[in-house]
Amino acid sequence: MNYPNGKTFSKITKQTNKNHKTITNAGNRGMNLENDLNLSNDFYNENNYCLITKRPTPINIVKVDYSKEARIIDAYFEKQSTTDYNGIYKGKYLDFEAKNTKNKTSFPLANITEHQIKHLERVLFHKGIAFFIIQFETLNEVYLLDASFVIDYYYQGERKSIPYSVFKEEGILIKRGLFPSLNYLDAVEEKYFKN
Amino acid sequence: MNYPNGKTFSKITKQTNKNHKTITNAGNRGMNLENDLNLSNDFYNENNYCLITKRPTPINIVKVDYSKEARIIDAYFEKQSTTDYNGIYKGKYLDFEAKNTKNKTSFPLANITEHQIKHLERVLFHKGIAFFIIQFETLNEVYLLDASFVIDYYYQGERKSIPYSVFKEEGILIKRGLFPSLNYLDAVEEKYFKN
Repeated sequence: MNYPNGKTFSKITKQTNKNHKTITNAGNRGMNLENDLNLSNDFYNENNYCLITKRPTPINIVKVDYSKEARIIDAYFEKQSTTDYNGIYKGKYLDFEAKNTKNKTSFPLANITEHQIKHLERVLFHKGIAFFIIQFETLNEVYLLDASFVIDYYYQGERKSIPYSVFKEEGILIKRGLFPSLNYLDAVEEKYFKN
Repeated sequence: MNYPNGKTFSKITKQTNKNHKTITNAGNRGMNLENDLNLSNDFYNENNYCLITKRPTPINIVKVDYSKEARIIDAYFEKQSTTDYNGIYKGKYLDFEAKNTKNKTSFPLANITEHQIKHLERVLFHKGIAFFIIQFETLNEVYLLDASFVIDYYYQGERKSIPYSVFKEEGILIKRGLFPSLNYLDAVEEKYFKN
Protein backbone atom coordinates (compact mmCIF):
# COMPACT_ATOMS: atom_id res chain seq x y z
CA MET A 1 0.00 0.00 0.00
CA ASN A 2 1.08 3.46 -0.83
CA TYR A 3 -0.41 5.54 1.97
CA PRO A 4 0.84 8.98 3.01
CA ASN A 5 4.21 8.76 4.69
CA GLY A 6 3.78 9.34 8.44
CA LYS A 7 1.80 6.76 10.35
CA THR A 8 1.28 9.08 13.28
CA PHE A 9 2.10 12.61 14.34
CA SER A 10 2.74 14.34 17.60
CA LYS A 11 -0.49 15.90 18.70
CA ILE A 12 -2.93 13.11 17.90
CA THR A 13 -3.48 10.72 20.78
CA LYS A 14 -4.24 7.24 19.55
CA GLN A 15 -7.37 5.63 20.91
CA THR A 16 -6.27 2.03 20.50
CA ASN A 17 -8.88 0.64 22.85
CA LYS A 18 -11.52 1.27 20.19
CA ASN A 19 -10.11 -1.59 18.13
CA HIS A 20 -11.29 -4.20 20.61
CA LYS A 21 -14.68 -3.88 18.99
CA THR A 22 -13.32 -5.46 15.82
CA ILE A 23 -12.45 -8.64 17.64
CA THR A 24 -15.78 -9.14 19.34
CA ASN A 25 -17.40 -8.42 16.00
CA ALA A 26 -15.38 -10.92 13.96
CA GLY A 27 -18.03 -13.64 14.13
CA ASN A 28 -20.60 -11.42 12.52
CA ARG A 29 -18.41 -10.32 9.66
CA GLY A 30 -20.27 -9.66 6.46
CA MET A 31 -23.53 -9.28 8.27
CA ASN A 32 -23.37 -5.60 8.98
CA LEU A 33 -21.85 -3.43 6.30
CA GLU A 34 -22.25 -0.17 8.19
CA ASN A 35 -20.56 -1.55 11.26
CA ASP A 36 -17.68 -2.93 9.17
CA LEU A 37 -17.21 0.42 7.50
CA ASN A 38 -17.29 2.33 10.77
CA LEU A 39 -14.67 0.04 12.29
CA SER A 40 -12.53 0.30 9.17
CA ASN A 41 -12.81 4.09 9.27
CA ASP A 42 -11.81 4.11 12.96
CA PHE A 43 -8.75 2.09 12.01
CA TYR A 44 -7.89 4.24 8.98
CA ASN A 45 -8.44 7.54 10.80
CA GLU A 46 -6.53 6.63 13.94
CA ASN A 47 -3.57 5.41 11.91
CA ASN A 48 -3.70 8.45 9.62
CA TYR A 49 -4.26 6.59 6.37
CA CYS A 50 -7.13 8.92 5.53
CA LEU A 51 -9.89 10.86 7.24
CA ILE A 52 -13.33 9.50 6.40
CA THR A 53 -16.37 10.02 8.58
CA LYS A 54 -19.97 8.93 8.51
CA ARG A 55 -22.51 11.71 8.47
CA PRO A 56 -24.95 11.38 11.35
CA THR A 57 -28.46 10.30 10.39
CA PRO A 58 -30.49 13.46 9.99
CA ILE A 59 -33.34 13.65 12.45
CA ASN A 60 -36.28 16.01 12.39
CA ILE A 61 -36.95 17.17 15.92
CA VAL A 62 -40.57 17.86 16.77
CA LYS A 63 -40.46 18.41 20.52
CA VAL A 64 -37.77 18.93 23.14
CA ASP A 65 -38.33 18.86 26.87
CA TYR A 66 -36.05 21.55 28.27
CA SER A 67 -36.99 20.75 31.85
CA LYS A 68 -34.83 17.62 31.50
CA GLU A 69 -31.58 19.01 30.01
CA ALA A 70 -32.82 19.28 26.42
CA ARG A 71 -34.23 15.78 26.14
CA ILE A 72 -35.80 15.06 22.76
CA ILE A 73 -39.25 13.56 23.31
CA ASP A 74 -40.62 13.58 19.77
CA ALA A 75 -38.65 13.24 16.52
CA TYR A 76 -38.42 11.16 13.39
CA PHE A 77 -35.76 9.95 10.96
CA GLU A 78 -35.17 11.86 7.74
CA LYS A 79 -33.70 10.49 4.54
CA GLN A 80 -30.09 11.48 4.00
CA SER A 81 -30.11 13.99 1.12
CA THR A 82 -26.41 13.43 0.58
CA THR A 83 -24.38 10.24 0.93
CA ASP A 84 -23.44 8.62 4.21
CA TYR A 85 -19.65 8.96 4.03
CA ASN A 86 -17.14 11.55 2.97
CA GLY A 87 -13.63 12.67 3.72
CA ILE A 88 -10.10 13.09 2.46
CA TYR A 89 -7.41 10.73 1.19
CA LYS A 90 -4.06 11.97 -0.13
CA GLY A 91 -5.46 15.48 -0.47
CA LYS A 92 -8.41 14.33 -2.60
CA TYR A 93 -12.06 14.61 -1.65
CA LEU A 94 -13.84 11.24 -1.34
CA ASP A 95 -17.58 10.67 -1.16
CA PHE A 96 -19.50 7.42 -1.12
CA GLU A 97 -22.67 5.58 -0.28
CA ALA A 98 -22.78 2.01 1.03
CA LYS A 99 -25.60 -0.43 0.41
CA ASN A 100 -26.28 -4.06 1.13
CA THR A 101 -28.36 -6.39 -1.06
CA LYS A 102 -29.49 -10.00 -0.62
CA ASN A 103 -29.97 -10.21 -4.37
CA LYS A 104 -27.46 -12.42 -6.23
CA THR A 105 -27.83 -11.30 -9.82
CA SER A 106 -28.21 -7.52 -9.63
CA PHE A 107 -28.19 -4.50 -7.35
CA PRO A 108 -31.64 -2.85 -7.22
CA LEU A 109 -31.57 0.96 -7.31
CA ALA A 110 -34.81 1.26 -5.34
CA ASN A 111 -33.26 2.56 -2.15
CA ILE A 112 -31.04 5.16 -3.78
CA THR A 113 -32.63 8.59 -3.80
CA GLU A 114 -32.52 11.19 -6.53
CA HIS A 115 -30.91 13.58 -4.02
CA GLN A 116 -28.04 11.16 -3.56
CA ILE A 117 -27.57 10.77 -7.31
CA LYS A 118 -27.48 14.55 -7.73
CA HIS A 119 -25.08 14.88 -4.84
CA LEU A 120 -22.68 12.39 -6.45
CA GLU A 121 -22.96 14.10 -9.83
CA ARG A 122 -21.88 17.29 -8.12
CA VAL A 123 -18.94 15.55 -6.48
CA LEU A 124 -17.77 14.35 -9.90
CA PHE A 125 -18.33 17.81 -11.38
CA HIS A 126 -16.02 19.32 -8.75
CA LYS A 127 -13.39 16.65 -9.51
CA GLY A 128 -13.87 14.61 -6.36
CA ILE A 129 -13.84 10.81 -6.12
CA ALA A 130 -17.33 9.35 -5.90
CA PHE A 131 -18.28 5.71 -5.61
CA PHE A 132 -20.59 3.13 -4.12
CA ILE A 133 -19.67 0.26 -1.83
CA ILE A 134 -22.13 -2.53 -2.55
CA GLN A 135 -22.29 -5.69 -0.50
CA PHE A 136 -23.81 -8.78 -2.12
CA GLU A 137 -24.61 -10.42 1.18
CA THR A 138 -25.61 -13.84 -0.17
CA LEU A 139 -22.42 -14.04 -2.26
CA ASN A 140 -20.31 -12.65 0.59
CA GLU A 141 -18.70 -10.13 -1.79
CA VAL A 142 -18.27 -6.39 -1.45
CA TYR A 143 -17.45 -4.18 -4.43
CA LEU A 144 -16.37 -0.63 -5.01
CA LEU A 145 -18.09 0.75 -8.12
CA ASP A 146 -17.45 4.24 -9.48
CA ALA A 147 -20.52 6.48 -9.09
CA SER A 148 -20.63 7.20 -12.83
CA PHE A 149 -22.00 3.67 -13.49
CA VAL A 150 -24.72 4.04 -10.89
CA ILE A 151 -25.66 7.48 -12.23
CA ASP A 152 -25.90 6.10 -15.78
CA TYR A 153 -28.11 3.19 -14.75
CA TYR A 154 -30.23 5.49 -12.62
CA TYR A 155 -31.05 7.76 -15.58
CA GLN A 156 -31.58 4.94 -18.07
CA GLY A 157 -35.00 4.64 -16.55
CA GLU A 158 -36.09 1.25 -17.85
CA ARG A 159 -33.89 -1.01 -15.82
CA LYS A 160 -33.98 -0.20 -12.12
CA SER A 161 -31.04 -2.38 -11.19
CA ILE A 162 -27.38 -2.87 -12.07
CA PRO A 163 -26.45 -6.40 -13.21
CA TYR A 164 -23.93 -8.29 -11.08
CA SER A 165 -21.74 -8.64 -14.18
CA VAL A 166 -21.11 -4.87 -14.14
CA PHE A 167 -19.61 -5.21 -10.66
CA LYS A 168 -17.48 -8.16 -11.82
CA GLU A 169 -16.19 -6.27 -14.86
CA GLU A 170 -16.05 -2.65 -13.72
CA GLY A 171 -15.94 -2.85 -9.94
CA ILE A 172 -13.08 -3.63 -7.58
CA LEU A 173 -13.55 -6.50 -5.12
CA ILE A 174 -12.85 -5.28 -1.59
CA LYS A 175 -10.70 -7.55 0.56
CA ARG A 176 -11.74 -8.46 4.08
CA GLY A 177 -9.33 -8.64 6.97
CA LEU A 178 -9.01 -8.03 10.66
CA PHE A 179 -7.58 -4.49 10.61
CA PRO A 180 -9.33 -3.02 8.77
CA SER A 181 -12.26 -5.41 8.51
CA LEU A 182 -13.10 -4.05 5.06
CA ASN A 183 -10.03 -2.78 3.23
CA TYR A 184 -11.79 -0.43 0.83
CA LEU A 185 -8.90 2.02 0.76
CA ASP A 186 -6.86 -0.55 -1.16
CA ALA A 187 -9.66 -0.60 -3.74
CA VAL A 188 -9.66 3.22 -3.85
CA GLU A 189 -5.91 3.16 -4.36
CA GLU A 190 -6.20 0.63 -7.19
CA LYS A 191 -9.06 2.41 -8.94
CA TYR A 192 -8.08 6.05 -8.59
CA PHE A 193 -4.41 6.38 -7.65
CA LYS A 194 -2.58 3.71 -9.65
CA ASN A 195 -0.29 5.09 -12.39
CA MET B 1 -14.09 35.35 -8.86
CA ASN B 2 -12.31 32.42 -10.34
CA TYR B 3 -14.78 29.59 -9.90
CA PRO B 4 -14.85 26.37 -11.94
CA ASN B 5 -16.02 27.05 -15.47
CA GLY B 6 -19.55 25.64 -15.84
CA LYS B 7 -22.27 27.37 -13.90
CA THR B 8 -24.65 24.50 -14.35
CA PHE B 9 -24.79 21.08 -15.97
CA SER B 10 -27.42 18.93 -17.54
CA LYS B 11 -28.67 16.59 -14.92
CA ILE B 12 -28.89 18.89 -11.93
CA THR B 13 -32.24 20.57 -11.54
CA LYS B 14 -31.92 23.97 -9.99
CA GLN B 15 -34.04 24.62 -6.96
CA THR B 16 -34.22 28.35 -7.32
CA ASN B 17 -37.21 28.75 -5.06
CA LYS B 18 -34.96 28.03 -2.07
CA ASN B 19 -33.34 31.43 -2.52
CA HIS B 20 -36.46 33.25 -1.40
CA LYS B 21 -35.39 32.46 2.15
CA THR B 22 -32.46 34.83 1.77
CA ILE B 23 -34.74 37.77 1.18
CA THR B 24 -37.06 37.16 4.10
CA ASN B 25 -33.96 36.67 6.22
CA ALA B 26 -32.22 39.90 5.20
CA GLY B 27 -33.42 41.86 8.23
CA ASN B 28 -31.84 39.44 10.63
CA ARG B 29 -28.50 39.37 8.90
CA GLY B 30 -25.58 38.86 11.21
CA MET B 31 -27.78 37.48 13.93
CA ASN B 32 -27.64 33.87 12.92
CA LEU B 33 -24.35 32.63 11.58
CA GLU B 34 -25.50 29.07 10.98
CA ASN B 35 -28.51 30.20 9.00
CA ASP B 36 -26.35 32.56 6.89
CA LEU B 37 -23.92 29.75 6.15
CA ASN B 38 -26.65 27.29 5.24
CA LEU B 39 -28.21 29.79 2.83
CA SER B 40 -24.83 30.60 1.35
CA ASN B 41 -24.13 26.89 0.88
CA ASP B 42 -27.52 26.41 -0.81
CA PHE B 43 -26.57 29.18 -3.21
CA TYR B 44 -23.05 27.88 -3.83
CA ASN B 45 -24.14 24.25 -4.25
CA GLU B 46 -27.07 24.97 -6.55
CA ASN B 47 -24.92 27.15 -8.78
CA ASN B 48 -22.07 24.64 -8.77
CA TYR B 49 -19.45 26.88 -7.24
CA CYS B 50 -18.59 24.18 -4.74
CA LEU B 51 -20.25 21.41 -2.77
CA ILE B 52 -20.25 22.10 0.96
CA THR B 53 -22.72 20.54 3.36
CA LYS B 54 -23.46 20.78 7.05
CA ARG B 55 -23.19 17.57 8.99
CA PRO B 56 -26.42 16.81 10.82
CA THR B 57 -26.28 17.24 14.60
CA PRO B 58 -25.50 13.82 16.06
CA ILE B 59 -28.27 12.53 18.27
CA ASN B 60 -28.13 9.62 20.65
CA ILE B 61 -31.37 7.70 20.39
CA VAL B 62 -32.58 6.05 23.57
CA LYS B 63 -36.05 4.84 22.63
CA VAL B 64 -38.03 4.46 19.41
CA ASP B 65 -41.72 3.68 19.25
CA TYR B 66 -42.10 1.35 16.26
CA SER B 67 -45.87 1.23 16.62
CA LYS B 68 -45.92 4.77 15.19
CA GLU B 69 -43.68 4.47 12.11
CA ALA B 70 -40.36 4.62 13.96
CA ARG B 71 -41.10 7.69 16.04
CA ILE B 72 -38.24 8.68 18.34
CA ILE B 73 -39.63 9.23 21.83
CA ASP B 74 -36.43 9.55 23.84
CA ALA B 75 -33.11 10.95 22.64
CA TYR B 76 -30.53 13.59 23.43
CA PHE B 77 -28.06 15.80 21.58
CA GLU B 78 -24.43 14.72 21.30
CA LYS B 79 -21.43 16.95 20.78
CA GLN B 80 -20.12 16.92 17.22
CA SER B 81 -16.81 15.04 17.33
CA THR B 82 -15.83 16.52 13.98
CA THR B 83 -16.56 19.95 12.56
CA ASP B 84 -19.92 21.12 11.29
CA TYR B 85 -19.08 21.67 7.61
CA ASN B 86 -17.10 19.92 4.93
CA GLY B 87 -17.03 19.48 1.20
CA ILE B 88 -15.17 20.10 -2.01
CA TYR B 89 -14.03 23.19 -3.93
CA LYS B 90 -11.97 22.98 -7.11
CA GLY B 91 -11.08 19.38 -6.35
CA LYS B 92 -9.76 20.21 -2.88
CA TYR B 93 -11.18 18.96 0.40
CA LEU B 94 -12.51 21.75 2.67
CA ASP B 95 -13.39 21.43 6.34
CA PHE B 96 -14.44 24.11 8.79
CA GLU B 97 -16.15 25.02 12.00
CA ALA B 98 -18.21 28.18 12.51
CA LYS B 99 -18.59 30.01 15.80
CA ASN B 100 -20.19 33.20 16.99
CA THR B 101 -18.92 35.37 19.84
CA LYS B 102 -20.31 38.49 21.53
CA ASN B 103 -16.83 39.27 22.79
CA LYS B 104 -15.12 42.28 21.15
CA THR B 105 -11.47 41.77 21.99
CA SER B 106 -10.90 38.04 21.62
CA PHE B 107 -12.43 34.74 20.58
CA PRO B 108 -12.74 32.37 23.57
CA LEU B 109 -11.80 28.76 22.83
CA ALA B 110 -14.14 27.38 25.50
CA ASN B 111 -16.69 25.92 23.12
CA ILE B 112 -14.21 24.21 20.83
CA THR B 113 -13.69 20.57 21.76
CA GLU B 114 -10.47 18.60 21.71
CA HIS B 115 -12.09 16.22 19.21
CA GLN B 116 -12.62 19.09 16.80
CA ILE B 117 -9.03 20.24 17.16
CA LYS B 118 -7.77 16.71 16.47
CA HIS B 119 -10.10 16.41 13.52
CA LEU B 120 -8.73 19.62 11.99
CA GLU B 121 -5.13 18.53 12.62
CA ARG B 122 -5.91 15.41 10.65
CA VAL B 123 -7.41 17.43 7.80
CA LEU B 124 -4.19 19.47 7.60
CA PHE B 125 -2.09 16.30 7.78
CA HIS B 126 -3.93 14.87 4.76
CA LYS B 127 -3.38 18.16 2.88
CA GLY B 128 -6.93 19.43 3.09
CA ILE B 129 -8.00 23.03 3.70
CA ALA B 130 -9.09 23.62 7.30
CA PHE B 131 -10.32 26.85 8.81
CA PHE B 132 -12.68 28.54 11.21
CA ILE B 133 -15.36 31.07 10.41
CA ILE B 134 -15.67 33.34 13.43
CA GLN B 135 -18.35 35.96 13.77
CA PHE B 136 -17.71 38.86 16.11
CA GLU B 137 -21.37 39.65 16.53
CA THR B 138 -20.98 42.95 18.40
CA LEU B 139 -18.52 44.24 15.81
CA ASN B 140 -20.62 42.86 12.94
CA GLU B 141 -17.54 41.23 11.39
CA VAL B 142 -16.97 37.68 10.21
CA TYR B 143 -13.49 36.29 9.61
CA LEU B 144 -11.98 33.22 8.02
CA LEU B 145 -8.96 32.09 10.05
CA ASP B 146 -6.79 29.14 9.06
CA ALA B 147 -7.16 26.24 11.52
CA SER B 148 -3.42 26.20 12.24
CA PHE B 149 -3.77 29.40 14.33
CA VAL B 150 -6.62 27.96 16.36
CA ILE B 151 -4.72 24.71 16.90
CA ASP B 152 -1.64 26.63 18.09
CA TYR B 153 -3.61 28.74 20.55
CA TYR B 154 -5.49 25.67 21.75
CA TYR B 155 -2.28 23.86 22.67
CA GLN B 156 -0.59 26.90 24.21
CA GLY B 157 -2.63 26.16 27.25
CA GLU B 158 -2.29 29.41 29.18
CA ARG B 159 -4.41 31.68 27.08
CA LYS B 160 -7.80 30.20 26.29
CA SER B 161 -8.72 32.77 23.69
CA ILE B 162 -7.40 34.23 20.43
CA PRO B 163 -6.92 38.01 20.43
CA TYR B 164 -9.00 39.99 17.93
CA SER B 165 -5.74 41.38 16.52
CA VAL B 166 -4.86 37.90 15.21
CA PHE B 167 -8.04 37.94 13.12
CA LYS B 168 -7.23 41.43 11.87
CA GLU B 169 -3.70 40.47 10.86
CA GLU B 170 -3.98 36.82 9.83
CA GLY B 171 -7.65 36.34 9.00
CA ILE B 172 -9.65 37.30 5.94
CA LEU B 173 -12.71 39.49 6.41
CA ILE B 174 -15.74 37.84 4.82
CA LYS B 175 -17.96 40.08 2.73
CA ARG B 176 -21.72 40.09 3.20
CA GLY B 177 -24.15 40.27 0.34
CA LEU B 178 -27.52 39.10 -0.83
CA PHE B 179 -26.47 36.03 -2.86
CA PRO B 180 -24.65 34.57 -1.06
CA SER B 181 -25.39 36.23 2.25
CA LEU B 182 -21.92 35.38 3.51
CA ASN B 183 -19.38 35.17 0.68
CA TYR B 184 -16.85 32.99 2.42
CA LEU B 185 -15.78 31.28 -0.81
CA ASP B 186 -14.17 34.55 -1.90
CA ALA B 187 -12.15 34.45 1.31
CA VAL B 188 -11.21 30.80 0.63
CA GLU B 189 -10.14 31.79 -2.88
CA GLU B 190 -8.02 34.67 -1.56
CA LYS B 191 -6.38 32.66 1.21
CA TYR B 192 -5.78 29.30 -0.49
CA PHE B 193 -6.03 29.62 -4.25
CA LYS B 194 -4.42 32.95 -5.13
CA ASN B 195 -1.14 32.61 -7.05
